[in-house]
Amino acid sequence: MEAARGKFISLEGGEGAGKSTLLAGLRACIEQHGIALVQTREPGGTRVGEAVRTIVLDPALHDLAAETELLLMFASRAQLVRELIEPALRAGKWVLCDRFADASYAYQGGGRGQPESRIAELEHWACAGIRPDLTLLLDLPVATGRARAAGRGDADRIEVEADSFFERVRATYRQRAAAEPQRFRMIDAGQSPSDVLQAAMVAMAHLFEAIT
Amino acid sequence: MEAARGKFISLEGGEGAGKSTLLAGLRACIEQHGIALVQTREPGGTRVGEAVRTIVLDPALHDLAAETELLLMFASRAQLVRELIEPALRAGKWVLCDRFADASYAYQGGGRGQPESRIAELEHWACAGIRPDLTLLLDLPVATGRARAAGRGDADRIEVEADSFFERVRATYRQRAAAEPQRFRMIDAGQSPSDVLQAAMVAMAHLFEAIT
Repeated sequence: MEAARGKFISLEGGEGAGKSTLLAGLRACIEQHGIALVQTREPGGTRVGEAVRTIVLDPALHDLAAETELLLMFASRAQLVRELIEPALRAGKWVLCDRFADASYAYQGGGRGQPESRIAELEHWACAGIRPDLTLLLDLPVATGRARAAGRGDADRIEVEADSFFERVRATYRQRAAAEPQRFRMIDAGQSPSDVLQAAMVAMAHLFEAIT
Repeated sequence: MEAARGKFISLEGGEGAGKSTLLAGLRACIEQHGIALVQTREPGGTRVGEAVRTIVLDPALHDLAAETELLLMFASRAQLVRELIEPALRAGKWVLCDRFADASYAYQGGGRGQPESRIAELEHWACAGIRPDLTLLLDLPVATGRARAAGRGDADRIEVEADSFFERVRATYRQRAAAEPQRFRMIDAGQSPSDVLQAAMVAMAHLFEAIT
């Protein structure tokens, strides 16, 4: 018997929104349901993707063009989809991904001004039709997120951007969530970690229902 | 006084066609004309581009998707255009580049089957309107080129492809040369190195005339 196709959940949000904490909690909850889970991240998740990650986060690369950054992000994503996400879903596993294509709309689009149509065109063929079944957006005022992230040590090439950059990133995420309410669930990341996890589990309830 | 814009010359051709030998000869000839020259290569030529080169030529990456390869090539190219080629041309320097966008049509298009329209769309925005003033195509039967290249030691990830791959690469290059006779000059790479250089200099004569 062929396994039912797995579910693909992406997690999005700005700096300091608590993605890592939520990922750990989600992972435990999903596995408690007896579901085989693959957790991954962007950029990264494959050998090529991790090499790309090293490039795009390198704070020494001041002159990385916005176009280059966009192409590198989709190179990592094209490989991740084909090498890991699609095979896992086909095998009935669930996939939990720290950022996916929405992050390019937010960071390379909203943040760096790359046209939305260009990103949509790349998404169309680079992602081979793969879109998350559910996208959890951890939303937080920029100042709050940056204050939380400030204690983490050296900032990467994107974390050193100005507040105005992150305001555009946040605004783009919120616009996308509003435009696709079926897929997106926006979670107030200013809540306690346990309340954030609770909200995420509520948002995922319909995915669990489908398998019981 | 603003410097006259420099000329951009790309060199294309399959494995073993003698590109490196010709590049050295061309460089010497151009500099003898008192022209400031920047020589570079693809993928590569910038810090980001060289990191991309390491990825795409790594023979251990058997599963690199064609889409990933295409995006990585254009990431390298987008950076090269903005960081090196356009500033050099604007400063009146000439640029001699070992492969450029035509190589993506030949290798990722003809070789790997990525649609020409997709490559053209990427070229449109990733290259910011930069196209070579002259493209020298070193043309050689596949078997001849591969026999020449065989003595060079370990083959990279692309060099290990089948003959049929390189036949498609060659056919695509020849089609592009036929479609753009103003920009392309096809040179029989089966000639002696000095005859190849002579043919290249004849092909470049109109560029030198423009500056004297």
